[in-house]
Amino acid sequence: MPIDPRFYRPQGALDTAELASRLGLDAAGLPEVSVTSLGSLDSALPGDLCFFDGSIKAWSDHQREGTVCLVREDQDWSNVQADGHIQVADPRVSYFQIADDWVTDERHENAPPIIHPDAEIADSAVISNGAAIGAGARIEPFVYVGPGVQIGKGTKIGSHTSIRFSLIGDGVKILAGARLGEDGFGLIPGEGHLKDLPHFGRVILQDGVTLGANCSVDRGLLGDTILGEHTKIDNQCHIGHNTVVGRNVIIVAYGGISGSVEIGDNAQLGGRVGVADHVTIGEGARIAAGSGLRRDVPAGETWGGYPATPISDWHREVVWLKKQAKRKAAK
Amino acid sequence: MPIDPRFYRPQGALDTAELASRLGLDAAGLPEVSVTSLGSLDSALPGDLCFFDGSIKAWSDHQREGTVCLVREDQDWSNVQADGHIQVADPRVSYFQIADDWVTDERHENAPPIIHPDAEIADSAVISNGAAIGAGARIEPFVYVGPGVQIGKGTKIGSHTSIRFSLIGDGVKILAGARLGEDGFGLIPGEGHLKDLPHFGRVILQDGVTLGANCSVDRGLLGDTILGEHTKIDNQCHIGHNTVVGRNVIIVAYGGISGSVEIGDNAQLGGRVGVADHVTIGEGARIAAGSGLRRDVPAGETWGGYPATPISDWHREVVWLKKQAKRKAAK
Amino acid sequence: MPIDPRFYRPQGALDTAELASRLGLDAAGLPEVSVTSLGSLDSALPGDLCFFDGSIKAWSDHQREGTVCLVREDQDWSNVQADGHIQVADPRVSYFQIADDWVTDERHENAPPIIHPDAEIADSAVISNGAAIGAGARIEPFVYVGPGVQIGKGTKIGSHTSIRFSLIGDGVKILAGARLGEDGFGLIPGEGHLKDLPHFGRVILQDGVTLGANCSVDRGLLGDTILGEHTKIDNQCHIGHNTVVGRNVIIVAYGGISGSVEIGDNAQLGGRVGVADHVTIGEGARIAAGSGLRRDVPAGETWGGYPATPISDWHREVVWLKKQAKRKAAK
Repeated sequence: MPIDPRFYRPQGALDTAELASRLGLDAAGLPEVSVTSLGSLDSALPGDLCFFDGSIKAWSDHQREGTVCLVREDQDWSNVQADGHIQVADPRVSYFQIADDWVTDERHENAPPIIHPDAEIADSAVISNGAAIGAGARIEPFVYVGPGVQIGKGTKIGSHTSIRFSLIGDGVKILAGARLGEDGFGLIPGEGHLKDLPHFGRVILQDGVTLGANCSVDRGLLGDTILGEHTKIDNQCHIGHNTVVGRNVIIVAYGGISGSVEIGDNAQLGGRVGVADHVTIGEGARIAAGSGLRRDVPAGETWGGYPATPISDWHREVVWLKKQAKRKAAK
Repeated sequence: MPIDPRFYRPQGALDTAELASRLGLDAAGLPEVSVTSLGSLDSALPGDLCFFDGSIKAWSDHQREGTVCLVREDQDWSNVQADGHIQVADPRVSYFQIADDWVTDERHENAPPIIHPDAEIADSAVISNGAAIGAGARIEPFVYVGPGVQIGKGTKIGSHTSIRFSLIGDGVKILAGARLGEDGFGLIPGEGHLKDLPHFGRVILQDGVTLGANCSVDRGLLGDTILGEHTKIDNQCHIGHNTVVGRNVIIVAYGGISGSVEIGDNAQLGGRVGVADHVTIGEGARIAAGSGLRRDVPAGETWGGYPATPISDWHREVVWLKKQAKRKAAK
Repeated sequence: MPIDPRFYRPQGALDTAELASRLGLDAAGLPEVSVTSLGSLDSALPGDLCFFDGSIKAWSDHQREGTVCLVREDQDWSNVQADGHIQVADPRVSYFQIADDWVTDERHENAPPIIHPDAEIADSAVISNGAAIGAGARIEPFVYVGPGVQIGKGTKIGSHTSIRFSLIGDGVKILAGARLGEDGFGLIPGEGHLKDLPHFGRVILQDGVTLGANCSVDRGLLGDTILGEHTKIDNQCHIGHNTVVGRNVIIVAYGGISGSVEIGDNAQLGGRVGVADHVTIGEGARIAAGSGLRRDVPAGETWGGYPATPISDWHREVVWLKKQAKRKAAK
């Protein structure tokens, strides 16, 4: 899937000569290609530029017809049938360098926002071009709705909220001061120092979601950050880029979900639960307040502690330690 | 005490026929009543609609003359003298369904705000109808003051702050980006999915309170969320609905206080202390930074740890564990 | 170094008579002095008022020609050659009482901001007098830039951000809803209750810093709070007053750094790390997510846990406790 044209605009197509020039390569050795958008490897379509920085052994699953893929030059690709490969030293770094120069935010210059006459918009709110606001929506003072953002029917956006690169469903409630669609936290090595990864994804809030005051939901790096239907999130929570939260999930205050996490339907996270990158929490799992989660939690289980373990283990450890330390002190 | 008419407006009185219709009951079996406002059981006045979803054994303390109380139909109320009882399957759910339809936010349509000539209001601030701002108050850019909000003398409201359903005393200082009076985090089962509880309470900040940047203080469900005189709260803290904090209390950054907590005068909470629902912290108690508190703390005690215990126990456990694990490793 | 005149304005000079009057002392016993600004002891220049509330034994290192220093009256200063000493009961309290009355925020009344023609400023942003915005800077909607604030070239300020008492370098990126330059969290005893310490310092963000959404960076009490070049800070972090963070440092979401902390270049703090006041973290040190740090961490070491220890100790303790508690349960 290419990046969403409601939010991003590649500056024309890139042909072989142009790609070679941007990559500092000799065009003579490259395949004849043309790319028109960015994609991530697992969903790239013809015309998308993508990258693969894994081992060649893991490649087969990912082959895509008609895409152009930056791959590692330190591997032998001669036996792989992949017409659109371009070998570079660091595919990830090269990919985002090209993307950063080539793709700009779509500003919808001549397309004023479309606001349903039944929507209630505070005078001080700023609704950008290309945005659309549904019937019965209510937008409070000092809300900023960025270019191309879609807001569904009956959705209420609290004061001082900012919404960019986002698709918001019907009957959603966002409390004051929430931040949707900001850049995620990703870094690449730059010229002797850290550099931010540019982001080209979206935030999607499905119908009936509630998001608390002063929360932040970062947009995906290439794909989407998603909150499923009727999921309820308390104040001061943070949802990292590319995280996918299921339906009817509860996340209590200060829940801090890192990037690329998956949380199943009906899961419940107590206050101040931290979840590391790429962790999966199964359907209906429950995580005790204050836990720090670094491993996957199977569906239906209850975990707790720092680092988190199945809750019976944690309770046993807490009780046993208390008893032992007390006995020692009594001697 | 009925809900505050400065913030909420019931849409006319509800008589027996109307209540029966909204509850899906037969009016014939119901007492002749009329309600004009909402109240919580422990402070309801005549004309208030309230609910009681506890066991009938706990009822006697709560009886109120002239109120109408939704109670559980799975108990035998025949021996209880309570003229205004209406039996329903789930009193809590029925109560908030009626309330949500019946009571709307008071917008003070024809009452421009009253601003003292000595108050300093930034041009970009939005002060709603029905609000009042005292002498010497200072309201910074992009502040939103909701309908009916009262702000005392010499109080300073930092930029980008939102204040709704709140009464703010004299000499209060609120730093930038704080959120006062948003909905608390309460859920009821809906039609196959989670639903938010509507809130009808207030936030009260007494004289001399300081509230840090990007904090959130949710309003009460029916009663008040209160910060007592000269209580000082650092940045990024969250105070849940119906929590009552005493005077001269210190809460350091990221303090996360759940709903219906009570904190006594002069208590001190270190950074990142989490407190579970309905916990009581006694006067002058001290809680170490990073603690997770699930039990009541007696006045004057010092607690720490996750989960928190008296601090001498915690220190003993930390030291003992360190020694044992090191000894084992040395073998 | 006196306080920065871009942000603060002492109301005229204070001579001996005026100081005596404000301190409630007899001018006859005081040295002939005149002060024109505030300074902190370790960098005060002639004409600065400073204070020293330590023991006289620690004094020698701090002597400054031409400064006026409030010192403790419960010590014998007769053998100390220090012309500008004034003895008071509580130097710290007296100092900030004088400062609070004497020094006001500089508003640059007749100096409209200087905005480079190539800067892109949203219509709704408020840029105060005395501020300067560099070429290629981008200021999003609802940003508040306070009096005297400097913003460098190519710097991007996200929507709803507030920036006061701050100097922001080139190529900085601040995401939406960040709070820079608010008062730090410092308290002194007042008339029977807690009082806030007034702040007279700054925030400095060096070139290439990224600061996440809804972060807060408090200004120094007298000196500066500093984020070094290319340091990258995730969402929802808090940096306390007078903390100095080095270059290329990574602080993941909810990092909570108290006051007067020092963090060396290239250090990395995982998510939700809490650091106590006055702690030093050495160059290249790494702190595991969720840790609570109360002691200094030497350069290059990796620490973790609550309270934090070298990470091998923490892992050993976690593993040993798990094994012991399980064995006991098996009996």
